[in-house]
Amino acid sequence: MSKSPIMDRRNLDFLLYEVLGAEQLPTWDAFADHSRDTFNAVVDLAHDLALEQFLPHNRKSDLQEPEFDNGRVRIIPEVKQALDAYIEAGFMSAAAPADLGGMQLPFLIDTAASSAFGAANVATFAYAVLARGVANLLTAHGNEDQQRRYRDPILAGRFYGTMCLSEPQAGSSLAEIRTRAVPQEGGHYLLEGAKMWISGGEHELGENIIHMVLARMPDAPAGVRGISLFAVPKCHVNDDGSLGERNDVVLAGVNHKMGYRGTVNTFLKFGESGQCKGWLVGEPHKGLACMFHMMNEARIGVGLGAIMLGNAGYLHSLEYAKERRQGRLPDQKDPASDPVALIEHADVRRMLLQQKCYVESSFALALYGARLVDEKAHAPEQAAREEAGLLLELLTPIIKAWPSDWCLKANELAIQILGGYGYTREYPVEQHYRDNRLNPIHEGTNGIQAMDLLGRKAMMQQGAALKLLMQRMQSTLTAAAPHAALADHVSAMQRYLQLAGETTGVLGQQLAAGNVRLALANATHYMTLIGHLSMAWMLLEQAAVAAKALPGASGSDRDFYDGKLIACDFFFRHELPVIEHSAALLKSLDDTTLRATAAHF
Amino acid sequence: MSKSPIMDRRNLDFLLYEVLGAEQLPTWDAFADHSRDTFNAVVDLAHDLALEQFLPHNRKSDLQEPEFDNGRVRIIPEVKQALDAYIEAGFMSAAAPADLGGMQLPFLIDTAASSAFGAANVATFAYAVLARGVANLLTAHGNEDQQRRYRDPILAGRFYGTMCLSEPQAGSSLAEIRTRAVPQEGGHYLLEGAKMWISGGEHELGENIIHMVLARMPDAPAGVRGISLFAVPKCHVNDDGSLGERNDVVLAGVNHKMGYRGTVNTFLKFGESGQCKGWLVGEPHKGLACMFHMMNEARIGVGLGAIMLGNAGYLHSLEYAKERRQGRLPDQKDPASDPVALIEHADVRRMLLQQKCYVESSFALALYGARLVDEKAHAPEQAAREEAGLLLELLTPIIKAWPSDWCLKANELAIQILGGYGYTREYPVEQHYRDNRLNPIHEGTNGIQAMDLLGRKAMMQQGAALKLLMQRMQSTLTAAAPHAALADHVSAMQRYLQLAGETTGVLGQQLAAGNVRLALANATHYMTLIGHLSMAWMLLEQAAVAAKALPGASGSDRDFYDGKLIACDFFFRHELPVIEHSAALLKSLDDTTLRATAAHF
Repeated sequence: MSKSPIMDRRNLDFLLYEVLGAEQLPTWDAFADHSRDTFNAVVDLAHDLALEQFLPHNRKSDLQEPEFDNGRVRIIPEVKQALDAYIEAGFMSAAAPADLGGMQLPFLIDTAASSAFGAANVATFAYAVLARGVANLLTAHGNEDQQRRYRDPILAGRFYGTMCLSEPQAGSSLAEIRTRAVPQEGGHYLLEGAKMWISGGEHELGENIIHMVLARMPDAPAGVRGISLFAVPKCHVNDDGSLGERNDVVLAGVNHKMGYRGTVNTFLKFGESGQCKGWLVGEPHKGLACMFHMMNEARIGVGLGAIMLGNAGYLHSLEYAKERRQGRLPDQKDPASDPVALIEHADVRRMLLQQKCYVESSFALALYGARLVDEKAHAPEQAAREEAGLLLELLTPIIKAWPSDWCLKANELAIQILGGYGYTREYPVEQHYRDNRLNPIHEGTNGIQAMDLLGRKAMMQQGAALKLLMQRMQSTLTAAAPHAALADHVSAMQRYLQLAGETTGVLGQQLAAGNVRLALANATHYMTLIGHLSMAWMLLEQAAVAAKALPGASGSDRDFYDGKLIACDFFFRHELPVIEHSAALLKSLDDTTLRATAAHF
Repeated sequence: MSKSPIMDRRNLDFLLYEVLGAEQLPTWDAFADHSRDTFNAVVDLAHDLALEQFLPHNRKSDLQEPEFDNGRVRIIPEVKQALDAYIEAGFMSAAAPADLGGMQLPFLIDTAASSAFGAANVATFAYAVLARGVANLLTAHGNEDQQRRYRDPILAGRFYGTMCLSEPQAGSSLAEIRTRAVPQEGGHYLLEGAKMWISGGEHELGENIIHMVLARMPDAPAGVRGISLFAVPKCHVNDDGSLGERNDVVLAGVNHKMGYRGTVNTFLKFGESGQCKGWLVGEPHKGLACMFHMMNEARIGVGLGAIMLGNAGYLHSLEYAKERRQGRLPDQKDPASDPVALIEHADVRRMLLQQKCYVESSFALALYGARLVDEKAHAPEQAAREEAGLLLELLTPIIKAWPSDWCLKANELAIQILGGYGYTREYPVEQHYRDNRLNPIHEGTNGIQAMDLLGRKAMMQQGAALKLLMQRMQSTLTAAAPHAALADHVSAMQRYLQLAGETTGVLGQQLAAGNVRLALANATHYMTLIGHLSMAWMLLEQAAVAAKALPGASGSDRDFYDGKLIACDFFFRHELPVIEHSAALLKSLDDTTLRATAAHF
């Protein structure tokens, strides 16, 4: 069976080995202990564990969401059981170096494994994702003491962690953070402030929670250049690693969300009694840069989560469309004839193809991004490491924003295929849709990602990252060019690449001239332009691989490769052409949104 | 105050009187007892009642949804209280003739009043909408006895009603209905079967429920030409109007939905004990045509409901964006400066303009459709009545489908503007989004609406309805032409009208040649083409009225009219151009969805 409710393994293997060359990774020093066999074993293990421990309580933790109970949080026991099994299997430290007790897996394979947990139960998996993010942050920026005291127990599966950025008055705007951190004798700080939207802010899934908190020191400059990062444990950790007394971090409330309910989301108060101790991580006033280490990972994680929800809905609605028989084709007039399977209806196929394209393009890009993380850290040549870092910077906002918009759309379509049934809580697709609606919001709204993409990433180093991306796209065109079935797409893509270049040039001129508001006014259209183009690239890359493999393929392999060609056809014909409109609008420097004032609404 | 949480009264008055000429309706015989004053009084009353009785329990009935309790349904008491007040105020029979005890209001004004209830609490309002639909159906197709026995008590607010079409195995495909109706001596029938997705199928909000049930007689031909319509009361009604014994209709279960939770949705079994009596409404085997009388109204009602959810979300997010201060404009570098209101950010304005366009275009079209209902029934000239009927047929699938897609998108954007807060159940926007997700599904999925639009409505009478629509659009272009600010839009619309005509011609040829599958394969794109064009038409019409009024306007009126011009600019520049792509795809007769088979997924 290639497809389970949470994974199309044939597709995953195709992406890993036929598209992304994962089998080459063991030739690098860092991954020399691995092989395709160990990679497969890890993915198998993740898949089985996700099916057995994560999927079964996905609905239950939605219905019985975490409860605020006198300063504590009550969570259904299945969540801890699943996470314990995850830890037991070694996934908490899967990508960590062997000398820290980790599996030292490539991030690419780690991400493939994560995809199973995300598809099965994104809310339970989130606790692990957050903990791993904190561990990585401390590896990058913590001192030895912090690593030993806080990080190592996370990697060992004993502690969890959080990111504490937002405050009630400042969600997207970190410049307005008010939490204070006052230095004390002995090297620690006393923190005081309130943090909002803190996922995993309180629970008893592990022994302790390490909060990574953004705060300002008394002498800090205004704005984001005055923000420092602190490690604030829920319980203090003694020198011998045993737990000390409780720190002054109080759970003030939990937020009740539309979806993603299994992940407790909290309102935390730090230092209500003046006793909240924290330790500076990294340099003073450089906290945001440190945190962005974690944020960038988190953004790829958000994208992957969105893709996996999209994938789970796609797989479910596909199964339903194959089994449910209803209606006749428009030219079948005989009412006595048997009804056909839903998948025979053109409009149902349209909705399946949309889902397939959204999921399989963005999953490829997220895995491509994961491979860039590996290249950046471990590629043998320095030039390759630098290129990977540059490209990753550019792709991060796309990997975060595009899937969280379009795989949400995929979930909307999955419901539509199931019809009335899809709208009930008896089927999983409505939960996917509610869960996925978070993803365009958190870790930087998609509007902010669009401004980041256009205003920073596309422009950085005189457009070097974008040029690099376009070179990579050109390589795909070269690979696709020999295949007659792809000729139209290759020439369309050539034209669109030129258009994207021209459009970026026009906007860059405005930015250079200081017309920042005008240049950024339609940044969301720029995200559509570059995002759609990136997805088209990924689909064309897959189609080129498929076209090459087809002559030697048979049976279900043949269908699989044909499916890749059809998905590519569909996206290029039905979806991609809208970027002509986005490009035209951007090039015209349309100022309608700037002209509309509050009084006009 | 022009705006309340449920209504922008300035906009509603603009649509009714400045755009749709509602003040002319009292010159028609049917509405001679009315005037703009009585119209205003009705809208005022609806607004106050909706605010006082419907809005306050909108969240409560979502959290405490109707419960299945031993064959009965328990509903929070506020629902009955609100509906009783609605009945008391005369709204159940607002559009019914005076001789039936009604207000004999134009449907246009009735719809304007309904918009307040729909925006305040769509789930509670649905009970009234269903009851009114049954009353109208019985007025059109019931015999005198059925009208007296079943309809009159509905109009008097004593009985409620349902539409029983779908069955567990047949949602969209009515040809597969299996419920049987066997004629008995005495003129009644015994029914046996199961009906699924029946809104309001069981409750105790009134004394009785009249189910309008589609079923097959034993000698019925297969398919939809063998379906008859029956009135099946929950409790029998004696000749003197008193209630008799309970009929054999059993509540077998309630469905638990993602949203729209306040409207109980049921699974009903008819004739489990062989004692379910029903009475034929209309002629044998002509039930579907009768039911479509109700369905067409219901489809306009679905569109209006979707618009009102969109409107409620828009008004809420607009208020939030004006009040919440966060962040700085991209060229404001001083972090010590005060944060600006969210509405100052271009991307937030983009999201507000999208919502404004989606809501204000489709609300105009729904009201235009309501006015056509009045014209069809009461216009002084027969030609006008016929034209109205023809145009209404064409517009019905658009009024149902377009707003249920795009005002759902509006709700998605409202959440985005509120950010994390919007994702919580503390704010109404997440409920709007969940509630609205039903609308693309029920009363004929949007895929079915698209096929109806292209395959039937655009083609009927050699395209007469579409020609008529285009003539009306041309009149708007003539009205807009003198205004320099609209010149670009007028010429764009001219071009698009030509494109729509050509596209329809290409598809019509294929249909005429019998290539039905190919012609209908991309019907959803046709809905986008004609739907977007219709919305552009409505926005341009409003802009033309505004442009004409502007020279004499001042103060908030000036801002209001300017807002109409900006909304029109936005839609024509940001949204409408995508139809060039839809038209190109349709004209190319793209067959990608036909080529994709089950094995390719």
